[in-house]
Amino acid sequence: MRIYDLIYKKRNKEELTDEEINYMIENYVSGDIPDYQMAAMLMAIFFNGMNDREISTMTNAMAHSGDMVDLSSIDGVKVDKHSTGGVGDKTTLIIAPVVAYYGVKVAKMSGRGLGHTGGTVDKMEAIPGLKTNFSQQEFFDIVNKTGISVIGQSGNLAPADKKLYALRDVTATIESIPLIAASIMSKKLAAGSDCILLDVKTGSGAFMKTLDDSISLAEKMVAIGENCGRKTVALITDMDIPLGNNIGNSLEIKEVIDTLNGKGPKDLTEISIKLAGNMLYLANKGTTQECENMAKEAIQNGYALKKLIEMVEAQGGYIEYIKNPEKFEKAKYSLELLVEDNIEGYIESMDTEELGIASTILGAGREKKDDIIDFSAGIILNKKVGDKIKKGDILCTLYTNNEKKLKDAKEKVISSIKFSNKEPEKIPLIFARVEKNSVQKF
Amino acid sequence: MRIYDLIYKKRNKEELTDEEINYMIENYVSGDIPDYQMAAMLMAIFFNGMNDREISTMTNAMAHSGDMVDLSSIDGVKVDKHSTGGVGDKTTLIIAPVVAYYGVKVAKMSGRGLGHTGGTVDKMEAIPGLKTNFSQQEFFDIVNKTGISVIGQSGNLAPADKKLYALRDVTATIESIPLIAASIMSKKLAAGSDCILLDVKTGSGAFMKTLDDSISLAEKMVAIGENCGRKTVALITDMDIPLGNNIGNSLEIKEVIDTLNGKGPKDLTEISIKLAGNMLYLANKGTTQECENMAKEAIQNGYALKKLIEMVEAQGGYIEYIKNPEKFEKAKYSLELLVEDNIEGYIESMDTEELGIASTILGAGREKKDDIIDFSAGIILNKKVGDKIKKGDILCTLYTNNEKKLKDAKEKVISSIKFSNKEPEKIPLIFARVEKNSVQKF
Repeated sequence: MRIYDLIYKKRNKEELTDEEINYMIENYVSGDIPDYQMAAMLMAIFFNGMNDREISTMTNAMAHSGDMVDLSSIDGVKVDKHSTGGVGDKTTLIIAPVVAYYGVKVAKMSGRGLGHTGGTVDKMEAIPGLKTNFSQQEFFDIVNKTGISVIGQSGNLAPADKKLYALRDVTATIESIPLIAASIMSKKLAAGSDCILLDVKTGSGAFMKTLDDSISLAEKMVAIGENCGRKTVALITDMDIPLGNNIGNSLEIKEVIDTLNGKGPKDLTEISIKLAGNMLYLANKGTTQECENMAKEAIQNGYALKKLIEMVEAQGGYIEYIKNPEKFEKAKYSLELLVEDNIEGYIESMDTEELGIASTILGAGREKKDDIIDFSAGIILNKKVGDKIKKGDILCTLYTNNEKKLKDAKEKVISSIKFSNKEPEKIPLIFARVEKNSVQKF
Repeated sequence: MRIYDLIYKKRNKEELTDEEINYMIENYVSGDIPDYQMAAMLMAIFFNGMNDREISTMTNAMAHSGDMVDLSSIDGVKVDKHSTGGVGDKTTLIIAPVVAYYGVKVAKMSGRGLGHTGGTVDKMEAIPGLKTNFSQQEFFDIVNKTGISVIGQSGNLAPADKKLYALRDVTATIESIPLIAASIMSKKLAAGSDCILLDVKTGSGAFMKTLDDSISLAEKMVAIGENCGRKTVALITDMDIPLGNNIGNSLEIKEVIDTLNGKGPKDLTEISIKLAGNMLYLANKGTTQECENMAKEAIQNGYALKKLIEMVEAQGGYIEYIKNPEKFEKAKYSLELLVEDNIEGYIESMDTEELGIASTILGAGREKKDDIIDFSAGIILNKKVGDKIKKGDILCTLYTNNEKKLKDAKEKVISSIKFSNKEPEKIPLIFARVEKNSVQKF
């Protein structure tokens, strides 16, 4: 077999066989296929695509290029959740305790934040004492005991994806639906859960700018998951609005606690119930409607908060911070941004990516891999898209321990918000739901 | 400027600016753009093409990546000729003396043969004493004195093409009309002639399998030539029939001499007059019809043969071989292939590539770069496509100095010929002629 012939086939819109795809991934990872041939192949895939069988085989080969985490020593159904990236997205820490209450296991390895998006592991480390690096056995033990553990990524998961992603990144072949699907799903397959819930963001700041593209991506990922023996559901959600009001690590933890106390922002509560409901559905706990009701109940009766406390304790965190969030250290400097102009109207849109960057400037994120995070830095939004505003209203409050950063962050935030004198159309939080052989639009 | 952005643009079917294309070629040749990024670019060009401006700029940049031969010290109009490769194609050695008789200069650097096609320089070296390696000054002197010189390729012509071709060869991006056009024309631009005649082969064994593709390639090459200040004409000719009856170096030289004596095969004579006529046309010697008549006359009155003798002498060859071709050493072994079956009918087709390979097996060509050529080896076709045949007729005669090769060559030749009981349709030798803004089909 020669990679040349496979490039030639794909270039001519022919299907590759399973054997050919396995050959390609194995020999690319081993270094026997050089980057220049794989670059030509990636561009040919960009133009001619891959069908569900091809992309499932490729994803499976990518997953098997490294460690395949074996979760069989954890009892019960293991459900994983993946988001294609959002600003202020703290849903994992709300929904994992909800589903764990019902016996569904969440054994999650999560990335750190870079650029404008925060990482769940960083947010967790805002809780004093909490650790996110454990041995595999300790990780399994925590999940068996509490039902949840979220730790940092370790081991050698899907090295084929790392190598391919680095090549796509420099050859303008990132924006290919089958290649994005394979990249995400290869890591999810390697991470070992039985079921996978995908939160596919759509909108101006997302990978997928249109609903149709987002649905196509979701369909590919669901097909891959199902073809590889993992029950998979995807929700298409709005990227153009930050989830909840808080952006920044300890600010977001506080909002998680508020939400699990039943006092969270409406949008964050609603989407968390939808996501948790679908995770319960994946674990065969009932219909989606029944499962959503179960999720609501776990929040209302405080059981989910108890689960969060159990996990924090198991990972070494000081639970008094969860019980009394006022204990979180506050940032030294804060700045309220007011509506200065003499206008009355509405917030028409917010550029979430710009808000994420502003938050990073304040210290809440990393610009480079080894930057140190200021856990108390960030932004609280007092007004959001669709809210009425008038002169003197507080738009948002910036928090930082580095006073010099306030000016730049303020400029970013102001330029990210657009006003209008008309009330903007209400946009649903969830646009669509994709399950095997079914697409449901809302 | 970043190559990433250029790949991205081309991938999205946007035009590249001249500045971007020059940047790309310069930095690829210098090694600052790695192969993997250029491979992605080549595949994007394969899918999205390049317009005439883009491809002209790219070709010009490729030409300027190495030596640009300066022919200004040669008086008069210099005309070059390029063929996209044919079996038994000895036309250069017929038409160069014809046009030189009319004062048109042919200062040609030509490649050696590899695989199934022979090289003009190899054919010339079948003339005892003749040299093909000269300094640039000697080369210019011979052209100024005799009007013609054909020497081996030297210097560093279009290194960008060498590097790009090697990459295309392993990334399945050879079959792209703009890239083929740029590759051929970059070398022609660097070779320095004022006018360029292109012989674009079409048919089963050629780069371009269909007439439409061949015309597209010819149009691109003519556009490049004209955009770069070279008057350019292309003829689309038939690849599926060997030109003349002789394949192999000294056998072909003999046929060249026969043709210049007015006793050559009809097809070879006819196409040589067309090609020479178009070279004279490029040099502004008259209308194509007038120029073709001039070409005929130069053959009929023996002036072209005199020119060939002048050139052979100037390059050190023994002219008695040209005056008396019987002097050429004959191969030790020959084998006549007869029509063995009890059939009466016609030759329907000949696979010219297979005939070229058979000739190489007999010793007339190189399988590897450093193989030594047996000048007297080759094939004389006694019957050609469309000829009537019956049992006992001689189809062709094989010549070699290595008796052991006869069996393999015989098998190749036999499998290359198809018979039919119907007389096949007559196919024109020339399908079309392409000039700036004009395509003429015959």
